[in-house]
Amino acid sequence: MRATELPNYRPITLGIVTYTYTTRIYYQDTDAGGIVYHANYLSIAERARTEALREMGAPHAEMVAQYGVMFVVHRVNLHYQRPARIDEVIHVETAFTGLGGASVTLCQKFMRGADSLAVLEVSLGCARVADGKATRIPRAWALRLKI
Amino acid sequence: MRATELPNYRPITLGIVTYTYTTRIYYQDTDAGGIVYHANYLSIAERARTEALREMGAPHAEMVAQYGVMFVVHRVNLHYQRPARIDEVIHVETAFTGLGGASVTLCQKFMRGADSLAVLEVSLGCARVADGKATRIPRAWALRLKI
Amino acid sequence: MRATELPNYRPITLGIVTYTYTTRIYYQDTDAGGIVYHANYLSIAERARTEALREMGAPHAEMVAQYGVMFVVHRVNLHYQRPARIDEVIHVETAFTGLGGASVTLCQKFMRGADSLAVLEVSLGCARVADGKATRIPRAWALRLKI
Amino acid sequence: MRATELPNYRPITLGIVTYTYTTRIYYQDTDAGGIVYHANYLSIAERARTEALREMGAPHAEMVAQYGVMFVVHRVNLHYQRPARIDEVIHVETAFTGLGGASVTLCQKFMRGADSLAVLEVSLGCARVADGKATRIPRAWALRLKI
Repeated sequence: MRATELPNYRPITLGIVTYTYTTRIYYQDTDAGGIVYHANYLSIAERARTEALREMGAPHAEMVAQYGVMFVVHRVNLHYQRPARIDEVIHVETAFTGLGGASVTLCQKFMRGADSLAVLEVSLGCARVADGKATRIPRAWALRLKI
Repeated sequence: MRATELPNYRPITLGIVTYTYTTRIYYQDTDAGGIVYHANYLSIAERARTEALREMGAPHAEMVAQYGVMFVVHRVNLHYQRPARIDEVIHVETAFTGLGGASVTLCQKFMRGADSLAVLEVSLGCARVADGKATRIPRAWALRLKI
Repeated sequence: MRATELPNYRPITLGIVTYTYTTRIYYQDTDAGGIVYHANYLSIAERARTEALREMGAPHAEMVAQYGVMFVVHRVNLHYQRPARIDEVIHVETAFTGLGGASVTLCQKFMRGADSLAVLEVSLGCARVADGKATRIPRAWALRLKI
Repeated sequence: MRATELPNYRPITLGIVTYTYTTRIYYQDTDAGGIVYHANYLSIAERARTEALREMGAPHAEMVAQYGVMFVVHRVNLHYQRPARIDEVIHVETAFTGLGGASVTLCQKFMRGADSLAVLEVSLGCARVADGKATRIPRAWALRLKI
C-alpha cells in the first residue's frame, strides 16, 4: 500500500507519559484467517484505555457516578501493520495526545516485543449520561488527564 | 465536536453502485452505555462487505479457494455521528471507491432511515493465504469489483 | 464422546410451533481453529429468540417499555455436535417449551440443511428493569407466548 | 426459579486444585441491560481455562504444535446466579473434574468476592487438528492435567 493511498496517515510520536497494558491473544480474539479479527483491536484498546484512566486516578466509572458524564468514541483511525496470532503476548501503549474542552485524543500502539502491530488514533467526546448531549469535560477530570 | 477538531474528515460521496445491508440491533451489539458498542460497527461492516462481494459475483470464500488469496484489513477510519440503540433497524450502504494493484478501498455508511449514524472508510489489502504476503488482486477478481 | 459421558443429555423434541432464523457465518463468528467460536452460538441464538418473540407479536423492547420487565438468561445447556464454518448458511429453529409464572424455557436447534450442529436449552427469567428482581411475566405477554 | 424447573442442576464441589483467573468487566463485556452479556461468560471462561492449562504446564498451543490435537468444546452447562456489572473485578476458579480417554470436564465458578455469580460445567473433547476427528488425549498431556 503506497502512502498516496493513505492521505491522512502521519507518523505517531507518543507523548512522554504512556501507559502499558499487556494481554495474551485467546481463541476469542482470532478468526478463521488464523489472526486477530480486525475489530477486536478496538476492544483490546478499550481495555487499555480504561486501565490508563485508572492509573491516572481518573477511572471512567467515577466520572459517570460523580459528574453524570461519560466518554463516547467519536472517531477511530486504525492502521494494521502486522497480524497478531493465538497465544502471543502483546502490549498496548496508550498516550493522551490532545485535550479540548469537550474531547480528548489518544494514540495507542499495539506492540509485540519491538514489532509494531498496529497504531490507533482515537477521539473521545464527553457526553451527558442522561441525554447523550456533548458537554465540557469536568475541570477536576481535565486536570488529571496527563497530556 | 467541531469540524476543526477532525482535520482529516471529509464528506463522502458514495460511488454509483452501492450495496445495502440491513440488520437489527440486538443486545449483543450494545453496551452498558445503552448504545451500540463502538467496535461492533466494524463487525456489522464486515457482514455488509461480505454480502456486497457476493452480490458482485465475487464471494470471498471463492477467492480463497480458487486463488489462494484473501483480503485483509489494512486500515479503517471510522467517524461516529449518532448512536444506534437496541431493536433499531439500520442499513449499511457499501461502495467500492478505489482499486489498486494489491488493494481496494471502500466507503460504508451506516444509516437509520435518513439519519447518518457513522461513516467508515476501509482499505483492504490482497494477501496470500499461505504466508500472508501482499500480492496482486487476481485479474478475474478485479474485473468483478465494480468501482 | 459417548452418551454415558453426558448424563444430563436427552433428545429434544421441538414444540409444534417453531420459528426459523437463518444466518450466514462470517469471519467474526469464527476462530483460529477454523470453526465458529463456541460462545458465538449463544449470540446467534439471542438473535433467533428475538426474532421469534417478534413474530409472536411479543417483541422484547415492547415488554421493557410497557411493563418495565425484561427477560434475563438464567441457564443455558448447549451441546455441540458438528462444527460450522465460514460462509456456511445455518438455520436456528426456536420453540418455546415451557412457561412458568416468572420464567420460560426454549429449545433452539442449529441446523445446516438436515445436519444438526448444536442443541441449546435456555431458561429465561422475568425481571424488573428497575432493580433486577424476579417478577411474574405480565399476563398479556404470557398469552402471546405460544408454547 | 424453582429447583424443579432445573432438573439437571446439581451443586458443584470444586476439586482440590483450582486455578484463579481475575479480570475486570469492561464496556465490551456488557449490554444495554447494564449487565455482562450472557454469552461473554463463555469467553471469560475460555481465558481462565487457557491460563489454568498454562499453569499446569500444559499450554494449549503446545498441544496443537507437538501432537496435532486440540480441545474442542462439546458441551456447556451454565447457570447464572447474580449479574456482573461494569468495572467490577471478578474471579474465575477453574478445576478439572474428570478425565476420560478423549475428553475432560471442568467446573468454573465466577465469583465477586464471596458472591457466586455463575457456575459453568464444560466438557472438552480431544480432536485432531487435521480433520477434526475425536482422538485420545496424548498420555503426556493427560498426566499433566491435575484432576
